[in-house]
Amino acid sequence: MPEPAQLHEPGAPRVLVAGATGFAGALAAQLLWHHPYFELAAVTARSHGGVELQELYPRYRVPLAFEEPAGARGADAALVGYPHGASARAVGEFYDEGLRVIDLSADMRLASLETYEQWYGEHPRSELLDEAVYGLTELHRPALADARIVGNPGCYPTATLLALAPLAREELIADVVIDAKQGISGAGRSFDERTHLSLAGENIAPYAVTGHRHTPEIEEQLALVGYEGRVLFQAHLAPLDQGELVSCYVTPTREIDGDELTAIYKRAYADEPFIEVTAGPPGTRDVRETNFCRIHAALHRHTGRVIAFAALDNLWKGTSSQAIQNLNLMYGRPEGEGLL
Amino acid sequence: MPEPAQLHEPGAPRVLVAGATGFAGALAAQLLWHHPYFELAAVTARSHGGVELQELYPRYRVPLAFEEPAGARGADAALVGYPHGASARAVGEFYDEGLRVIDLSADMRLASLETYEQWYGEHPRSELLDEAVYGLTELHRPALADARIVGNPGCYPTATLLALAPLAREELIADVVIDAKQGISGAGRSFDERTHLSLAGENIAPYAVTGHRHTPEIEEQLALVGYEGRVLFQAHLAPLDQGELVSCYVTPTREIDGDELTAIYKRAYADEPFIEVTAGPPGTRDVRETNFCRIHAALHRHTGRVIAFAALDNLWKGTSSQAIQNLNLMYGRPEGEGLL
Amino acid sequence: MPEPAQLHEPGAPRVLVAGATGFAGALAAQLLWHHPYFELAAVTARSHGGVELQELYPRYRVPLAFEEPAGARGADAALVGYPHGASARAVGEFYDEGLRVIDLSADMRLASLETYEQWYGEHPRSELLDEAVYGLTELHRPALADARIVGNPGCYPTATLLALAPLAREELIADVVIDAKQGISGAGRSFDERTHLSLAGENIAPYAVTGHRHTPEIEEQLALVGYEGRVLFQAHLAPLDQGELVSCYVTPTREIDGDELTAIYKRAYADEPFIEVTAGPPGTRDVRETNFCRIHAALHRHTGRVIAFAALDNLWKGTSSQAIQNLNLMYGRPEGEGLL
Amino acid sequence: MPEPAQLHEPGAPRVLVAGATGFAGALAAQLLWHHPYFELAAVTARSHGGVELQELYPRYRVPLAFEEPAGARGADAALVGYPHGASARAVGEFYDEGLRVIDLSADMRLASLETYEQWYGEHPRSELLDEAVYGLTELHRPALADARIVGNPGCYPTATLLALAPLAREELIADVVIDAKQGISGAGRSFDERTHLSLAGENIAPYAVTGHRHTPEIEEQLALVGYEGRVLFQAHLAPLDQGELVSCYVTPTREIDGDELTAIYKRAYADEPFIEVTAGPPGTRDVRETNFCRIHAALHRHTGRVIAFAALDNLWKGTSSQAIQNLNLMYGRPEGEGLL
Repeated sequence: MPEPAQLHEPGAPRVLVAGATGFAGALAAQLLWHHPYFELAAVTARSHGGVELQELYPRYRVPLAFEEPAGARGADAALVGYPHGASARAVGEFYDEGLRVIDLSADMRLASLETYEQWYGEHPRSELLDEAVYGLTELHRPALADARIVGNPGCYPTATLLALAPLAREELIADVVIDAKQGISGAGRSFDERTHLSLAGENIAPYAVTGHRHTPEIEEQLALVGYEGRVLFQAHLAPLDQGELVSCYVTPTREIDGDELTAIYKRAYADEPFIEVTAGPPGTRDVRETNFCRIHAALHRHTGRVIAFAALDNLWKGTSSQAIQNLNLMYGRPEGEGLL
Repeated sequence: MPEPAQLHEPGAPRVLVAGATGFAGALAAQLLWHHPYFELAAVTARSHGGVELQELYPRYRVPLAFEEPAGARGADAALVGYPHGASARAVGEFYDEGLRVIDLSADMRLASLETYEQWYGEHPRSELLDEAVYGLTELHRPALADARIVGNPGCYPTATLLALAPLAREELIADVVIDAKQGISGAGRSFDERTHLSLAGENIAPYAVTGHRHTPEIEEQLALVGYEGRVLFQAHLAPLDQGELVSCYVTPTREIDGDELTAIYKRAYADEPFIEVTAGPPGTRDVRETNFCRIHAALHRHTGRVIAFAALDNLWKGTSSQAIQNLNLMYGRPEGEGLL
Repeated sequence: MPEPAQLHEPGAPRVLVAGATGFAGALAAQLLWHHPYFELAAVTARSHGGVELQELYPRYRVPLAFEEPAGARGADAALVGYPHGASARAVGEFYDEGLRVIDLSADMRLASLETYEQWYGEHPRSELLDEAVYGLTELHRPALADARIVGNPGCYPTATLLALAPLAREELIADVVIDAKQGISGAGRSFDERTHLSLAGENIAPYAVTGHRHTPEIEEQLALVGYEGRVLFQAHLAPLDQGELVSCYVTPTREIDGDELTAIYKRAYADEPFIEVTAGPPGTRDVRETNFCRIHAALHRHTGRVIAFAALDNLWKGTSSQAIQNLNLMYGRPEGEGLL
Repeated sequence: MPEPAQLHEPGAPRVLVAGATGFAGALAAQLLWHHPYFELAAVTARSHGGVELQELYPRYRVPLAFEEPAGARGADAALVGYPHGASARAVGEFYDEGLRVIDLSADMRLASLETYEQWYGEHPRSELLDEAVYGLTELHRPALADARIVGNPGCYPTATLLALAPLAREELIADVVIDAKQGISGAGRSFDERTHLSLAGENIAPYAVTGHRHTPEIEEQLALVGYEGRVLFQAHLAPLDQGELVSCYVTPTREIDGDELTAIYKRAYADEPFIEVTAGPPGTRDVRETNFCRIHAALHRHTGRVIAFAALDNLWKGTSSQAIQNLNLMYGRPEGEGLL
């Protein structure tokens, strides 16, 4: 096979991916490598130095070798895929060197330092929180265009907020229970009981019953669009690879009929290139390996509740392809470039 | 291989399984064939006449051939695995001939004829509803011992009621949302879009969003143990074979702490041979191909709600092995005979 | 979501896909819809008239509705995804109207009419066989450029021939056993025992033990590159969606060492854009949803045999993306256009 | 739930399982715990001291806690599930203390010390090899009855030898290629790239291409029944949990017709309680979680070869349930006790 050539224009922004051995970082690198505009400047990782990304992920066909993390390496922007804490430090270094940075961890997502510390411990670069823009594209498009630091959302908050924002904006949420299901890739490239096919197969199980870290992120963002209460968020692992479905059970603030409900969602997402408001309940298979989120809301007449479903790929729209969507915005590119 | 011999005592009750080509009927037949007490008298079906059950289900190793449905064939008891409507007619015929009958369909589950007709249409033998006992063993054990007709519960109501009954009895339920997930065997031996591996794989999707037929069954039974309100029940299909998890989100009638909650469940199920109250959230894998139901309840401090989970195998405790558990009770046998 | 627009230049060839409800036709339509050069003129099918392709395959996002099969509809080229027999008739009609045609069925693959009739019965348009070029791109590239009719290869022959051609050309094959494994999508959009997740899951099983129809296709093509003997080809279904691995056990005509073997394969595929000669044994996951084929050959010192493995996606390089690769060739486009 | 009670007669042999945290040891312990005759004396392991087996494997419902490995603990017999090398030392200690021992590792399988050392390195207790009986029940039944040490076969040799022994005894094998496929449980309770659902899913891949350790075991045993040549054995991993299929491609020493072939297999296994000679090709699903092996042999007319297939559950008949079958034999019990 002839050596593949990266597709990019001379002078295109050079983007570095830090922490590219994990599922999220590797996918971000792959999307950049095949992106028609950006240049993938380097992939770095704290292990696997000298190993090509395509040895770990052959299907991604990225022939760059992992390099030691060390500075900006001439890049204009960086995507950071480290665990929280480590991520903030890397984000800070890149920012200090003048790069525009998208952080895939939780470190730049929360506006409230107090909330952060409660869930994650000390924040190594808390002064940057004011600079960071929350990277749920559909909610923060204008601010993202100029962002220096983007806190890319968690996969659960992405699905949940896309499902609930139209209701929140109409002040229709009195209370909400969110039941989320996700595939095994959500546990990351971790080798343990949760990910072994012989233990994870034929298994659906709840986890983080005492409270999931994505809860405050959901609440903080919902408050911005009109719902200031608490949410119950419960996560489950299911035996598939990539895919996430959230089922949101909303007690509405007033009676609502089905037609109005449909109209609210249709209107909310009429111009969104990656949101599909579907006529029936959405499944994860229909969004696998895409940046699309499929949403359906229905009135449960028997109880008067509203159920809002959202399905997406936890690694794509839930993480890495949304990061590229944001990068497109930040550099004035068509929002779907490299993603369609 | 030498021909296998069925294990049973002379004079043991002879049990017929009607509608044994489906998943539920076939499993019931298999459990009876290997049961140390009962004799499997015959397997009948409206198709596959002359074909041995083990040709359709080799793993079950039941060498009886399917016979045309035609009367009692000398049996003492019958398990009926037909679709609703057809099932009531078969149940009626067997009952008229003096057999004790367990119906795996919905036809004998609901006490209210009006409710039945609303969800399923006309009832061909509605006068039998008064005779029928609801076959959730843990809730109706005394009545089951003498039952002539048992309406074996749906798999979703089994899990849901086992999860919620302890709270209902304490009048702790003010409101409840039930999010249920089930494997593909829940769709039965149907060959269509829902069951094709290439369409069902990598998919989690809600179904029956406008209302699931198991809702009235859950409400009718919950009313008997102390909760008379409506429930929101939402089902989902997930890419596994056998397994079902329900996650019940309960708004309690009063504040409750975690210790009290644990005590309620421990006490409720202390003597139950097939209920395991677990220390952490239960998974479906841990109950696969067993008659066990694993239950866990937790206080969600952040919202004050109670979450009750129940995991079981939809074909076993959710259907066929629970039928055998009931049959054991009806004939004064140890409740776990043939199931451990 | 705004209505998607198909990407194509004015004046670009218009391509019709006939039989687009099946897995192969639908994927071909999807690849054409997103192809930067060709225009997808229409999708036809004998069922589902008026239904959009994206209703059956939401992930493909092709908003064209299925039309009744009826002539060329102004297209310049056609891909035909009908079953054999029906396919030849459709190919003939398109050819008569002056279209260039790629047939995904077996009807245009075999040069020998006698062999065809032995395996498939009467051939409705046998006079076209002389016109047809066998569409294994890597073996017939020059002829494909000018082809009016292409017999696109079966998925098994594609993998097998790519694995064995380098050895055949060196006259190194004295005898060969081919053990092939494939995912459930290989059974097509058929709803039956083979494809039900609850029956196909946890199952690996051989099929077509008396002889697989792909055998003569493999033998006819191997003869062209230097091996004129018979082959034993045995197929198996395995519980995954898309993916195919062939393991070819070759008795060589002479002793060969590992270095020579590696050199033969490296040389054979040095300039091939979609063939990867790998350092270790290839897996199907690494080629999923790509047009790539990964190949590895090793000397089994203990017996002196050569083992040649090839992994590809049965729906992509095994069927539909190879058809697009051929279409690119036929219209003088870069071979990988729309496939990278 | 009431505490379960182990079912056994007073005075029944007490059996210890050493290395019971792995898949094979844990299953052996489960089968013993529910066995109507034997008493499970203890489960030991080098980790997880004090943890109950049912915490690691809830479905097995064995409430014994893992103990430190330390002597016989009053047991009459032991099953050893350690890795090779360590296993021989434990077998030796138990044997020295007078126990009858079944070793699940490779340490007691090979008669030739030279062969062992070539594949596994130094043997810590090679003097025991003369004492050991190879535990493929169907081949060594008489010797197993009196065995003090049993070398329980590997899962691949079990399937392969059961498929080939009837042909070998008739001196019908001139040459053989064995293509084996196995589920992920074959990789054991190892947490790595091979077992992560997101890497193992959608993957079929060969491994151990340079030669699998089970090759000499197959050759040594085949020589005892009539084929003294070399074999080519190639293993593959497939995305299921438990299950193994071997496809054996035999060049026969003489022409043979299909009827004779069928007769040979029917005769060979007519009295075997756990071997099913099937009319069509066998699948792994049909033997899942059973001690059965399903076998089918067919003549491939086109090439004159014989193909023999065998399907079994790698953890059951391939390992742990076969060990119980042997234990039954060793203690004069019905061979299928606790396994039907």
